[in-house]
Amino acid sequence: MAMDGYRGFLGLLVSALLVGFLSVIFVLVWVLHYRGGLAWDGSLLEFNWHPVLVVTGFVFIQGIAIIVYRLPWTWKCSKLLMKSIHAGLNTVAAILAIISLVAAFDFHNTLQIRNMYSLHSWVGLIVVILYFLQLVLGFFVFLLPLAPPSLRAFLMPIHVYSGLFIFGTVIATVLTGVTEKLIFSLSTYSTLPPEGVFTNTLGLLVLVFGALIFWIVTRPQWKRPQETNSILQPNRSNPEGVEGSMAINFGNVDKSDSDLNNEAAARKRNITVDEAGQRSTM
Amino acid sequence: MAMDGYRGFLGLLVSALLVGFLSVIFVLVWVLHYRGGLAWDGSLLEFNWHPVLVVTGFVFIQGIAIIVYRLPWTWKCSKLLMKSIHAGLNTVAAILAIISLVAAFDFHNTLQIRNMYSLHSWVGLIVVILYFLQLVLGFFVFLLPLAPPSLRAFLMPIHVYSGLFIFGTVIATVLTGVTEKLIFSLSTYSTLPPEGVFTNTLGLLVLVFGALIFWIVTRPQWKRPQETNSILQPNRSNPEGVEGSMAINFGNVDKSDSDLNNEAAARKRNITVDEAGQRSTM
Repeated sequence: MAMDGYRGFLGLLVSALLVGFLSVIFVLVWVLHYRGGLAWDGSLLEFNWHPVLVVTGFVFIQGIAIIVYRLPWTWKCSKLLMKSIHAGLNTVAAILAIISLVAAFDFHNTLQIRNMYSLHSWVGLIVVILYFLQLVLGFFVFLLPLAPPSLRAFLMPIHVYSGLFIFGTVIATVLTGVTEKLIFSLSTYSTLPPEGVFTNTLGLLVLVFGALIFWIVTRPQWKRPQETNSILQPNRSNPEGVEGSMAINFGNVDKSDSDLNNEAAARKRNITVDEAGQRSTM
Repeated sequence: MAMDGYRGFLGLLVSALLVGFLSVIFVLVWVLHYRGGLAWDGSLLEFNWHPVLVVTGFVFIQGIAIIVYRLPWTWKCSKLLMKSIHAGLNTVAAILAIISLVAAFDFHNTLQIRNMYSLHSWVGLIVVILYFLQLVLGFFVFLLPLAPPSLRAFLMPIHVYSGLFIFGTVIATVLTGVTEKLIFSLSTYSTLPPEGVFTNTLGLLVLVFGALIFWIVTRPQWKRPQETNSILQPNRSNPEGVEGSMAINFGNVDKSDSDLNNEAAARKRNITVDEAGQRSTM
């Protein structure tokens, strides 16, 4: 569990979890206290599932899925286990996102409100589709032991980039959703009543949660160390030498950078193996 | 001007410029064709300056400022010159952002519409304030030859991160602004009239522009090569060895990563110097 700036990491992680939990609590209080509660009857109460599921799944769970490789106490676990957790969390988030869409469409259809006219609905649908493509691509290329290392190496920077782009776009879409909903439903919004302040604050919390996740996931010193000789042992530890390097590079892996990352990983490994005694994937 | 994947870079750059120009044209067509034009008289026509200046300055010019170090034909120019261009473009963007705020407040005050109640206004004001702090910090720490290299090394990853966070948040804020404006002003929005389609498309263009800028700025192989021994020659070339490494790391520079970057830069330099013959900052 050797990690540079471990206490800083822990502080940021606890902050992200707190702000994430607070966002979920805020969205629940919003719909339960200010918006009449939850139901599944085609009414406004069914629509209320939309923000609850988006903030819980598409924001909070996706955010945790993004940083799960960075938890240093998981570095002893196999990469396959961590990939499964990463994929599992994203699958849960995707299912919640789909149910959230059903809630919105069902409500619109019951009350004969048109679907898909607003910028929020356009960007929201695009980002859900991208999320599913990302999930399917990730499953077949990185989780199943089928894709050759060269394909993984080529696709990994795209996977990392598009994952973060999707996450950022989800947060932007939440802000447009809060904006829409408050203008439509809170006739006194311009006088800034308690619900306005409360729900604006929910928007800020979601933004701060995104900021914390982006900081955690882009610090090179907090990335999971690479497996030694993983490229040479594809069946034992999955060929993810390239994946391990994504956090340092945050992008394409060209020849020289890949070499450098292996070197960095080797340095870190020396410490890690000494402290952990053994590694389950080695 | 040695650059890995130069043609890919050029394609992405041209795409970003095209989408950026198209965004500016779209916002101009929106206000001139659909929203009655531009004026400075406290009316809705004065408000129209708000989206025009935000998309032109806070989105397009800021986006170019972010990637200006990555243009390979500028790698022969001194780092000080490039920093001045980076700071200059950001200053222009900041001035346009301020005028855009004045236009919105002036319109609200003239028509006695309340200010600062919406999530758009909250996030927008916060991001403008952060942008000014970023600009002042950047000016005193990185442009003026005053700050010690250790302070620059400490602040550079924060500068890079907060710059990209601000840019992403500006784009999110634009999406909330488009959402607000269409709901307030386009009574037929839910029937998706031509203005609705057109302005939603403007929102998508701004999002795609952001996506292209983020891709370009996070590719490690497209970063400006570092100056040789720049830390050792602070007065000749400004101590920006650390700054040069930001793109590879996209984050904190710890000891080992810094060493690795120097090595990567040295490799690239060998090619660069060979081809360019000489470098103006060396």
